[in-house]
Amino acid sequence: MLDHSQLAAKAAIDPANFALANCLRALAIDAVNAANSGHPGAPMGMADAATVLFRNHLKFDASAPDWPDRDRFVLSNGHASMLLYGLLHLTGYADMTLEQIRNFRQWGAITAGHPEWGHAKGIETTTGPLGQGIATAVGMALAERRMADEFPGLVDHRTWVMLGDGCLQEGIGQEAISLAGHLGLGKLNVLYDDNDITIDGPTSVSFSEDVPKRLEACGWHVIRCDGHDADALDAAMGQAKAETTRPSLIAMKTVIGFGAPNRAGTAKAHGAPLGADEGALAKQALGWDAAPFEIPADLAKEWRAIGARGSDARAAWEDALAASDQAPAFRQRIAGDLPKGYDSAVAQARAALFAEPQAIATRKASQVALESLTEAVPAMIGGSADLTGSNLTRVPAVDSLFSPESSGRYIGYGVREFGMAAAMNGLALHGGFKPYGGTFLVFSDYARNAIRLSALMGLGVTYVMTHDSIGLGEDGPTHQPVEHLASLRAIPNLNVFRPADAVETLEAWDIALRSPATPSLLALSRQGVPQLREAGDENLTARGGYVIRQFGEGRDVTLLATGTEVALAVEAAEALHAEGHAVAVVSMPCWELFDAQPEAYRDEVLGLAPRIAVEAALPFGWTRYVAREADVVGMPGFGASAPAERLYAEFGITCDAIVARAKAHLAG
Amino acid sequence: MLDHSQLAAKAAIDPANFALANCLRALAIDAVNAANSGHPGAPMGMADAATVLFRNHLKFDASAPDWPDRDRFVLSNGHASMLLYGLLHLTGYADMTLEQIRNFRQWGAITAGHPEWGHAKGIETTTGPLGQGIATAVGMALAERRMADEFPGLVDHRTWVMLGDGCLQEGIGQEAISLAGHLGLGKLNVLYDDNDITIDGPTSVSFSEDVPKRLEACGWHVIRCDGHDADALDAAMGQAKAETTRPSLIAMKTVIGFGAPNRAGTAKAHGAPLGADEGALAKQALGWDAAPFEIPADLAKEWRAIGARGSDARAAWEDALAASDQAPAFRQRIAGDLPKGYDSAVAQARAALFAEPQAIATRKASQVALESLTEAVPAMIGGSADLTGSNLTRVPAVDSLFSPESSGRYIGYGVREFGMAAAMNGLALHGGFKPYGGTFLVFSDYARNAIRLSALMGLGVTYVMTHDSIGLGEDGPTHQPVEHLASLRAIPNLNVFRPADAVETLEAWDIALRSPATPSLLALSRQGVPQLREAGDENLTARGGYVIRQFGEGRDVTLLATGTEVALAVEAAEALHAEGHAVAVVSMPCWELFDAQPEAYRDEVLGLAPRIAVEAALPFGWTRYVAREADVVGMPGFGASAPAERLYAEFGITCDAIVARAKAHLAG
Repeated sequence: MLDHSQLAAKAAIDPANFALANCLRALAIDAVNAANSGHPGAPMGMADAATVLFRNHLKFDASAPDWPDRDRFVLSNGHASMLLYGLLHLTGYADMTLEQIRNFRQWGAITAGHPEWGHAKGIETTTGPLGQGIATAVGMALAERRMADEFPGLVDHRTWVMLGDGCLQEGIGQEAISLAGHLGLGKLNVLYDDNDITIDGPTSVSFSEDVPKRLEACGWHVIRCDGHDADALDAAMGQAKAETTRPSLIAMKTVIGFGAPNRAGTAKAHGAPLGADEGALAKQALGWDAAPFEIPADLAKEWRAIGARGSDARAAWEDALAASDQAPAFRQRIAGDLPKGYDSAVAQARAALFAEPQAIATRKASQVALESLTEAVPAMIGGSADLTGSNLTRVPAVDSLFSPESSGRYIGYGVREFGMAAAMNGLALHGGFKPYGGTFLVFSDYARNAIRLSALMGLGVTYVMTHDSIGLGEDGPTHQPVEHLASLRAIPNLNVFRPADAVETLEAWDIALRSPATPSLLALSRQGVPQLREAGDENLTARGGYVIRQFGEGRDVTLLATGTEVALAVEAAEALHAEGHAVAVVSMPCWELFDAQPEAYRDEVLGLAPRIAVEAALPFGWTRYVAREADVVGMPGFGASAPAERLYAEFGITCDAIVARAKAHLAG
Repeated sequence: MLDHSQLAAKAAIDPANFALANCLRALAIDAVNAANSGHPGAPMGMADAATVLFRNHLKFDASAPDWPDRDRFVLSNGHASMLLYGLLHLTGYADMTLEQIRNFRQWGAITAGHPEWGHAKGIETTTGPLGQGIATAVGMALAERRMADEFPGLVDHRTWVMLGDGCLQEGIGQEAISLAGHLGLGKLNVLYDDNDITIDGPTSVSFSEDVPKRLEACGWHVIRCDGHDADALDAAMGQAKAETTRPSLIAMKTVIGFGAPNRAGTAKAHGAPLGADEGALAKQALGWDAAPFEIPADLAKEWRAIGARGSDARAAWEDALAASDQAPAFRQRIAGDLPKGYDSAVAQARAALFAEPQAIATRKASQVALESLTEAVPAMIGGSADLTGSNLTRVPAVDSLFSPESSGRYIGYGVREFGMAAAMNGLALHGGFKPYGGTFLVFSDYARNAIRLSALMGLGVTYVMTHDSIGLGEDGPTHQPVEHLASLRAIPNLNVFRPADAVETLEAWDIALRSPATPSLLALSRQGVPQLREAGDENLTARGGYVIRQFGEGRDVTLLATGTEVALAVEAAEALHAEGHAVAVVSMPCWELFDAQPEAYRDEVLGLAPRIAVEAALPFGWTRYVAREADVVGMPGFGASAPAERLYAEFGITCDAIVARAKAHLAG
């Protein structure tokens, strides 16, 4: 229940701020009611703080939403989306019309249930999956810090985050907090909507931490304040900005659904519309008498002025950029373009492989590729989730470690795969970077929903996932991916590469760097493979699949394989050919790219002869290309702990097994 | 570098403990060297603490490893597996022979690279994926606490955990810590191997938290001590046991690779064998002169005595159990057997559905099923990751909330999906419980690696995953699973159910409860569906797939569907039949169970006519049953934010689309 005298007291602290905040509350009530779906409570509770932030602190210019040096604002508790849409509409972002607000959560509207990056300017990242907003914001703050060092005078902005209890309960929230504290990201400022309510009721059902103390333990600067006291909020934000070596948390005590007489402070305000009656009562309590979706002209004008607050600063910045020697480099970085020397760097790396073929693990081939590419592409920023020596992700050009003291090109993400993936999303979203990061393929599980968000947003992020099969050997089934290739191929708009050799690995990297709107995942081997590819200029990996070897004329059987098993398929093909059969071996490093080829090409590559697939993984999904799962030489289930060669033999992924399977078809 | 005088000083504190600990260190050195693979540093660093724990505190009897009231010991940093194998071998667990230790990490050995539950008694859970050991241990502590209330006098034991920095960096570690602190799990005692080293180097690369302060902020009791001082360790463990209302952390300062002259205290001791030379030098420094894999007789005898330390207590406990009225109930619970009334409860619930068909969402059908089943099965313990009202997981028999004050049958896991899943694994591993917990299907991503461990271990855990498609509507693509059914079906030994109606939902629950060695995942709808099944006694869901409707004689086309799309397929079949075609509709609630049916049954169900599949998800994987992905009426990619009906129409998952697709085949 709302305490009306408390409300009046809060309103009196800064009536102008309160009135502006009521615009946000009213829009949230109306839009959620109109959609009959959504979350009114959080926008109503955070409206005062959001107003103070946009009115007094956030560096932005609504007329130039792409201004590279704007502050970033991330709504980590994405279910409060109407707060963000309201802010964008009121401050005058061109896309965010009243019509869009009226169509909240409807087909075709940019005002989705949760903020979707790409729908509208001012939505800096997609949020909703809790904890990922703050973790993505950490990536943005990393980007800012490094860009500021690379382009002094051109980059100096903050990353502001709003989050709720859910983001703090999710483990990824802690990963982000820990990393931000460790790296001393002083321009990361987080506003915590401490309202004591979760969906299941009071937070006391499941959450009783001393959050400020936890964050202090992680190296954060913590400020406490009343989330409905505009003066206190303003002071707290000022303190946060004054602190430069530690990230700041402003723990704001708030009332969820602030203003709603019967639902304020309860879980009922969380995820359901207030409805007509309670909505009307809330507006009455707030002193709001405009019609639904209507903003009184004076308030609308004030909000527009807020939206234009940063225009002088932005103009000055444009001038500074124009005057800077670094302008071309800066613009290229922000545009995400590859530098001039890039093509020749790739060509040289390619020529070197053909001049001196490399029989190495594909993770090692990735390292070789990275040595050239990171040198050629300053936008590349690397890292690993504490497996650098295994992932082979650290090479000379990115050797400098990002630390509290200086912004290097290599980030020690710690054993925080999920946080790493979300931070890479943030680096990409910020602009200026082509991030990559490594872990074991099996631990893609830990990062999975952030990989999904890379794909949903369409970000040029590259996942370096090594130890891609039972070929990792002794670590055993907990570390051996068997279902991961399938489960990752199932994600839309994600290019999953499993290169067969050093050439395909280089080609996969090349495609990854040329794909600003599709994330790439490289599944790389621990164990060595021969270099199979013969000299040629075309990036055949870009075809997704191609005939890598042909034995004899025509085809009696086609062997499809990926990664380390391509060499095994070639060996089997040789054996079959020795017995007089014509065999084509198809390397399929990327299903997604293969499926995007013209039908005629695909038909030609796959051929009409019986097909056998070979992959040291479960057959799930391969029936896209072969008649039945029995035609896949692969894993029957989870792996085991033993040396790699023994595992291949015991699980029957051998030359003999392929030959036998092929012969069964040839006999039939 | 090792400080020899420091080593001598530590050894002098309790020479007997030091000598016993050296047995563990020597075995770790020898086994890792023999395998030429593994992690010697952590076992060497934690050996002193492990010795104190097993020698003075852990309640166990090596001759009776299944004693239900034993303390549980969880090695959360599973890469230190040789520590555990050494302890089990030395204390006399029958399975853990010297031969097994010699075959560390080899094919067929029970001494896998990481501890695998089921390989040997005394391995209480599979560990290796960091952070999950502690989270699973939280589940064990929850189980103990509730069992102690249910069976007073028969249950009173502790859960001891060893973990390293990695477990604390992983987000799931924090989820577990937060939940344990919130619920006041006083019998959870954690030993933190604080050695300042991770794989990438000193922890300062990525980790600089004040860990004790973080845990205090989460309600933990924290003790600091020297991890090589046997007296201090003993006192700390005593203090931990004396604290009953808060979980305890013993932060032990340790030296990784303790004893190895050139590698102690460095990352080199972490994940690579010491090798012959450094191994020999380490043994010399430790004063160890036995041959490889040899334990001096006096020390072996002492260790055996430690293994027998608990035998009197165990015998007394057996007597107490024999004398208890609760013995039959207790034994049934530990055995995991279903109670006598179970069959009739299911039969009654089934009869009720046929007497009064329910046109409801399958999540609601799950709630209806749970109302009966939780009443009949006291072992069931429920929960949700803060989506109780959406998952509909809380029903009268499990209404009591688990709290710091009393152990209820419903756990508010908070917004911690991964922690929830791992805790459920712990509840199942402890014995006495059939846990289930809910979240949205899309957030199975967050919990994915713990679901994988449920499957790898083969645990009777049930995942209640609601809002299983675009049918959830307005929340939009971040909340709409499209690839999740495929990615979960790809996991071995996991039954993924997508029931079509209330009857199939009840049947799926029945199968889940009867599957102690296979986890189940129920993908349930937000939106309502008609009850399609007609009366009959057989649990047809157990067949995985079956003909739910036949229109006309023979078959012109077969429509395969799951979940909410079965009703749509029936509608389409009716339309096709009206035009004179014979159509069978196959409901396929569980692919895994269908594939386990005899070939003749599968052939009969699938038939020879052209097949069309219908599922509001990506077609990935369906080519197992249909000729090509174009034969799947499903999603083309990510979803969108709009009311459900609109989404189905816009994405073309409609009766008309199915009819058109079928007709194309019929024409051809």
